[in-house]
Amino acid sequence: MKNKKDIIAGIIVIGNEILSGRTQDTNTGTLSVWLNSLGIKVGEVRIIPDVEATIIETLNILRNKFDYVFTTGGIGPTHDDITASSVSKAFNIKYGPHKEAMSILEKYYKPGEFNEGRQKMAWMPVTADLILNPTSGAPGFNVENVFCLPGVPSILKSMIGGITEKLVGGEPILSETINLQTVESEIAKSLSNVQKNNTKVEIGSYPFFKAGKLGVSIVLRSKNKDNINKSLKEIMDFINKKKIQIVEN
Amino acid sequence: MKNKKDIIAGIIVIGNEILSGRTQDTNTGTLSVWLNSLGIKVGEVRIIPDVEATIIETLNILRNKFDYVFTTGGIGPTHDDITASSVSKAFNIKYGPHKEAMSILEKYYKPGEFNEGRQKMAWMPVTADLILNPTSGAPGFNVENVFCLPGVPSILKSMIGGITEKLVGGEPILSETINLQTVESEIAKSLSNVQKNNTKVEIGSYPFFKAGKLGVSIVLRSKNKDNINKSLKEIMDFINKKKIQIVEN
Repeated sequence: MKNKKDIIAGIIVIGNEILSGRTQDTNTGTLSVWLNSLGIKVGEVRIIPDVEATIIETLNILRNKFDYVFTTGGIGPTHDDITASSVSKAFNIKYGPHKEAMSILEKYYKPGEFNEGRQKMAWMPVTADLILNPTSGAPGFNVENVFCLPGVPSILKSMIGGITEKLVGGEPILSETINLQTVESEIAKSLSNVQKNNTKVEIGSYPFFKAGKLGVSIVLRSKNKDNINKSLKEIMDFINKKKIQIVEN
Repeated sequence: MKNKKDIIAGIIVIGNEILSGRTQDTNTGTLSVWLNSLGIKVGEVRIIPDVEATIIETLNILRNKFDYVFTTGGIGPTHDDITASSVSKAFNIKYGPHKEAMSILEKYYKPGEFNEGRQKMAWMPVTADLILNPTSGAPGFNVENVFCLPGVPSILKSMIGGITEKLVGGEPILSETINLQTVESEIAKSLSNVQKNNTKVEIGSYPFFKAGKLGVSIVLRSKNKDNINKSLKEIMDFINKKKIQIVEN
């Protein structure tokens, strides 16, 4: 699946609250859409608990398997925030107060408010590069190909812009969607033929039910616009023959 | 982390549409809440693409690692639905038309409408047990400790009730949440002490921002109500001392 030009990332979502169903992960979607826009595909996501051995093992597997790894969650001030210490162990780098992070947080808080809990947010692999946090001060960090971000979605969103220039992307992944008033089984065979004729386009078929209407979204993804257009033409040919209506978004 | 009595499940979310950020996975939350109510903890979730080798490898790892594995997605009629054939290969069971599934779908569709695309939905490991689908006919299936469900959230929800009696759960996992008007760094040290005194309770701390208010939810999870109550009392002690307000839900 991996061509020379493919740049692929893994995502590790760290947190018992996601595994218990208490919190709905939305960071995967945010990261994926942003990475796709940079020509980076997401190869796999793993959601794991706040358990040190699991974090270290997962990180070591994915950072060797993928070009980039993004972690979300577990970099706050409380006892269950163990991402920074686990990443230090995975890379065998000293875990301690990061000079630049300490300096940022000292300035961020009012005098006397930079207490022990807040200082913990500056503890990380001491040689890490920081990922600045324009929302709430406490930075994320980057070691080699691993980028550690917070779990709170609004804060994560505000931080990813700062990483963009550190990433080497591939050709952007282009995407085209066509929504049809049909059911999957009516188009399955024709669509399968289009996929066989166009192996460089990833063709997905997704049923939808909205506003009482049943339909199918066909999503075409490729780095090459001409390839997408060729598949799209072949799809238009069979839906015209079958007299299937297109549903506007 | 695994006691003798712990029953742990893995979840595999199969689909390029989740990895591209096009579709937000909500099935993990649905499955986790339901499994927790049966005393089954979710140990890990992996979101993987529609790639046969990846599905087989992931399935073989997780079905040996966990008591149960649930897959979502990839059991529809189109070319990108390859979960059933991949599961057949992982278990080395013949992939073909499943007699009972064929019979269910023949009855479900009007005469003449049970076309090739729809017949594909009855193709699966031929010796699998079916998971009935009260919403849209096409069943899921179960082989050994693996349960294969569809990706459409409303259909998945309607099917899980039918599996409950097949699962052997552990003691239900109890949970108590207390919402505080504070920030994490103010309570980090005290909360860490409570966690140290109560190793059988999993204590999570999650910042929230709602209706313009900043706060922290503390979640206590354990199989033993007394253990939860003991931790809760220790938390009440320190929040009273610190004069921290409780926020009603």
